[in-house]
Amino acid sequence: MKIIVDAMGGDNAPQEIVKGAINAARARPGLEIVLVGKEAEVKAAAAECGPLPETVKIVNATEVIEMHDDPATAFKTKKDSSMTVGLTMLKNGEGDAFVSAGSTGALLSAGTLLVKRVRGIRRAAMAPLVPVSGKGLVLVDCGANAECTVEYLLQFAYLGSFYASRALGMEKPRVGLLNIGTEDTKGDQLRLDAYQALKAAGDAGHLNFIGNIEAKEAIKGGCDVVVADGFSGNVMLKTIEGVGSFVGKELKGMFLQSVGTKVAALLVKSGLRAFKERLDPDTIGGTPFLGLQKPVIKAHGSSKARAIENAVYQAITAAEADLAGQIEANIELMKVGR
Amino acid sequence: MKIIVDAMGGDNAPQEIVKGAINAARARPGLEIVLVGKEAEVKAAAAECGPLPETVKIVNATEVIEMHDDPATAFKTKKDSSMTVGLTMLKNGEGDAFVSAGSTGALLSAGTLLVKRVRGIRRAAMAPLVPVSGKGLVLVDCGANAECTVEYLLQFAYLGSFYASRALGMEKPRVGLLNIGTEDTKGDQLRLDAYQALKAAGDAGHLNFIGNIEAKEAIKGGCDVVVADGFSGNVMLKTIEGVGSFVGKELKGMFLQSVGTKVAALLVKSGLRAFKERLDPDTIGGTPFLGLQKPVIKAHGSSKARAIENAVYQAITAAEADLAGQIEANIELMKVGR
Repeated sequence: MKIIVDAMGGDNAPQEIVKGAINAARARPGLEIVLVGKEAEVKAAAAECGPLPETVKIVNATEVIEMHDDPATAFKTKKDSSMTVGLTMLKNGEGDAFVSAGSTGALLSAGTLLVKRVRGIRRAAMAPLVPVSGKGLVLVDCGANAECTVEYLLQFAYLGSFYASRALGMEKPRVGLLNIGTEDTKGDQLRLDAYQALKAAGDAGHLNFIGNIEAKEAIKGGCDVVVADGFSGNVMLKTIEGVGSFVGKELKGMFLQSVGTKVAALLVKSGLRAFKERLDPDTIGGTPFLGLQKPVIKAHGSSKARAIENAVYQAITAAEADLAGQIEANIELMKVGR
Repeated sequence: MKIIVDAMGGDNAPQEIVKGAINAARARPGLEIVLVGKEAEVKAAAAECGPLPETVKIVNATEVIEMHDDPATAFKTKKDSSMTVGLTMLKNGEGDAFVSAGSTGALLSAGTLLVKRVRGIRRAAMAPLVPVSGKGLVLVDCGANAECTVEYLLQFAYLGSFYASRALGMEKPRVGLLNIGTEDTKGDQLRLDAYQALKAAGDAGHLNFIGNIEAKEAIKGGCDVVVADGFSGNVMLKTIEGVGSFVGKELKGMFLQSVGTKVAALLVKSGLRAFKERLDPDTIGGTPFLGLQKPVIKAHGSSKARAIENAVYQAITAAEADLAGQIEANIELMKVGR
């Protein structure tokens, strides 16, 4: 297994990226890592992590895609960027998966145009595992496609379902359509039509479709995979982050009120830490782009070493799951007649 | 000031509704309450609350709109329902505002068709005050209109802004457009077009438009009014509720872990209560339907007496604010050329 890592992407590149990737290589014998980036900088960062494991190689790339670069074209105008070089290697079979904490938009464009979608897949989708009830919730799409068709949503359902079962170990994942009510008459035209397409797939036994689901119930554990257009999916994801951060701040204020509450904070210290850890994006790792021919994992822009290490493990799991093969074998089910 | 209350709407009708309305009448001298519903039941419920204040009247209505009735037509097929009778009284000037904890869909249809929208307003919108940072966040629309046009969104911005400033005391409320990024190139076509319409209104000094806003920033207090189509607005609202309930459950588990954590729970008891109260829908009261000629307030279906009492106060505030007058005076600003 060989994972290609964009050493230059993200707020803490290259130091934290290099450190996380090297930690993964040390922890998993047999795992090969390719660090792509400005050679001198990557080497300097690696030197801080002790002797370089033999399983870690460095590939030089002289450019870096920055947040202000146009995401749609950056990978072309910066042909020698770490992202373009790394994705090209992935495409050419010089690695099994690619991890980057760089610009989401650039990675999506570059991934789609260089690695390419599985034939028949209309759009790649972003599918984070949201750390709510139980094993968590696969939210697909969460922002790659603001405007969607019924076929996109049907495909997202399959992509999310394959990912949940093959990479996350969820058996017969329960797929819900994010909607503003549970009855089949709820929502806009897109939801009405998508419901019918998903129901047909469910009735035929191809998906474990449980119907429409409201955001509240999905968070409570009402389904394993929630299918959404990228606009409302992104609103859901960002709202979860926002409320999490709001609640954290309020609790902090509550525990700082008096000597008594400060004592209370000490008494629940380990519980609070576990709770915070649970909602910590660093624990989760990255968001896979589903529907591409090879695994591409987007790590948070603010990723530190541990997040990158986890994203590398996630990339391994995704590569082992051979999602592209599963998608190809089922692509006929994912078409919507016109 | 005379508030008409649907005594039969909601899970706890008529007892809790009647109690809440009578409590409001007792607390506010000069406030008149009209309880509409099955006379015998309402009288029996009122008898449980002690002597009926002179300011509380009961109007008989022999039918009740149930949750399983078709929301679009229930008010017509059940002409003698508490909702239809109450809204007709409102329309005829026999009261200043109407409060109901009954079916949201039925209330929206009945409110729109009986009380009617202000001339020029395309759609009524639901605008709850979400109890997040600071004074809270007006979320408009949160579910009445799954499918929206640019003109709807522009109108929602004005409706929310007028409500925030005139009824909630927010000065020059900061209006943000819910989007999946802050740049003006973000989002789907609806958002791109709405951004331009809102920016023009902001540049002309009619609205304090601060641009696109992500759900996370809105929750953190980045704006006072967030403008959304009813689909994504509903997803945001339900996600907030879902995460709130999820966090509450997790915290409870944390505090129940050991003797030490139980002691901690005692030490932060008052803080926890304040925190819970803050997020409690009963404290907030109801959701106004903005854009109608007279105030209609939807209380939670699960409302108990305190929630109804608060919804009555909210109805008073809405009536005093004369939102309809403000909307009428500015309706020309809310039109989008075709």
